[in-house]
Amino acid sequence: MTTSDLYEQIKKKGSCLCVGLDTDFDKLPKKIKDLAGDAYVKDGKTLYRNGSEIALNGHLYGGVARSIVEFNKAIVDATAPYCVAFKPNLAFYEALGSEGMAALDGTVAYIREHHPESFIIADAKRGDIGNTAKMYAKTYFETMDFDAVTLSPYMGTETVLPFLEYKGKYAITVALSSNPSSADFQELGEDGKPLYRRVMEKMMEISTPDNMMFVVGATKASRLAEIRAFCPDNFLLVPGVGAQGGSAEEAIRYGANSKVGLLINSSRAILYASSDEDFASAAALKASQTARIDTL
Amino acid sequence: MTTSDLYEQIKKKGSCLCVGLDTDFDKLPKKIKDLAGDAYVKDGKTLYRNGSEIALNGHLYGGVARSIVEFNKAIVDATAPYCVAFKPNLAFYEALGSEGMAALDGTVAYIREHHPESFIIADAKRGDIGNTAKMYAKTYFETMDFDAVTLSPYMGTETVLPFLEYKGKYAITVALSSNPSSADFQELGEDGKPLYRRVMEKMMEISTPDNMMFVVGATKASRLAEIRAFCPDNFLLVPGVGAQGGSAEEAIRYGANSKVGLLINSSRAILYASSDEDFASAAALKASQTARIDTL
Repeated sequence: MTTSDLYEQIKKKGSCLCVGLDTDFDKLPKKIKDLAGDAYVKDGKTLYRNGSEIALNGHLYGGVARSIVEFNKAIVDATAPYCVAFKPNLAFYEALGSEGMAALDGTVAYIREHHPESFIIADAKRGDIGNTAKMYAKTYFETMDFDAVTLSPYMGTETVLPFLEYKGKYAITVALSSNPSSADFQELGEDGKPLYRRVMEKMMEISTPDNMMFVVGATKASRLAEIRAFCPDNFLLVPGVGAQGGSAEEAIRYGANSKVGLLINSSRAILYASSDEDFASAAALKASQTARIDTL
Repeated sequence: MTTSDLYEQIKKKGSCLCVGLDTDFDKLPKKIKDLAGDAYVKDGKTLYRNGSEIALNGHLYGGVARSIVEFNKAIVDATAPYCVAFKPNLAFYEALGSEGMAALDGTVAYIREHHPESFIIADAKRGDIGNTAKMYAKTYFETMDFDAVTLSPYMGTETVLPFLEYKGKYAITVALSSNPSSADFQELGEDGKPLYRRVMEKMMEISTPDNMMFVVGATKASRLAEIRAFCPDNFLLVPGVGAQGGSAEEAIRYGANSKVGLLINSSRAILYASSDEDFASAAALKASQTARIDTL
């Protein structure tokens, strides 16, 4: 997907919302949990292993994975009119072992088939040396069908280079994250120039706004104006809205460029807007109220 | 596994070698590739999807995953007398989708059963905010059966905290990596104190040598003496030996403490010591010559 296509979607839907699919079985509504059936034996290992397997999209799902895919499908259908992107958080799928990876595949395939206008981000925070980075790029852009993947820059530019070689795909480098301990290292710096800025400048040297985005936390909204001054054109993926306390309105006020240039992520506040059977309509309502670009 | 147990193994085997299982189907000997059978259709997707599935250790394996597990088993059996640790590189398994994760599980289960004295590291370089870090800790220490996992520190101390709560398990924080672009950010610093040192000092404040190790590349052997001065007790995982050009002897000379305190990793130089049917004996020979502690 080109950045122009993404901008068109944002205008059309009136939103720059990204819905984070941090889907946690323990937080699902009872009705969805029940789909897992006998597979859900709560003692660690057995939880994910003894699933009554069912075939869906050509993949095998254990019981827990089935619940997760069904929950995701309902969330995706309910929120797609109000968002332009979906962002599965890989930790939540990997924690379920190989069935979790099948559930991730199934979720991505469902979005591609039913909401092909959506931008799909693997929230993976990967970052490794060249030949390993190449395998991760293959994982997300060939084995799986993502448009973009989040990357951690600690090991330098070669951790992102293999991702930039795929046309229409994006590396999303973590610059300034939304968590309390982000300041431990990201804000250290010589000559008044913090690490996150050096990371962004270095990454901008080797990329273009058509293959590179940056993660900048909404809990640091005051920094967004400063970041826009030296990074006017790249899309910024902004986490930290909702459960983490950041404000989407402030992020838009300080972080938007002339083409919006933002994807504002909310995960828990949307997924678990209701813990009851009305979870999907509650998620839709919450999504329809988050990251509207009318405020521009 | 306690650090004392690990030290005992190092003394017993006369080696601080860690064998990296960066297993790449394309590099396997023909005989092992052939095990994949009809499943190996080289056009991207089909490669990993149409496997003639077989049950092994209770998991389903596609054809390619079967080749990988069989190769790993042969390498593990051949090198176990000469090494104390194995380190699967997760990118190589994730690139195969859900079957790859099953192959990873199968490899770990095989090591646990046949070489229970071995220390098993997930080379994952994960690093994310608290609730996500917790899911990754669950992935490697509960869903899977690893002793340790490599972590990337960019997002701060909370990326490692959940891993420290598991007794007998280890977070291995990347400090100074072995790749050419490691200097992009790891060596930046105020007041002459580079980022990698700040990372190590901060992580040492919240951990002990019984739950924290650090990655320090062998291609930076001259730095090891300096690092030992401020980090005398933690185990250091040293990659970069072999294909990446670092010297195990130098790493031991500069990096060892009184209890060795090193795990020296070699991957490609051992796995692909021969591309023929004698790959396992060639790997054993190479392993028996790498990271011997006799040089201490």
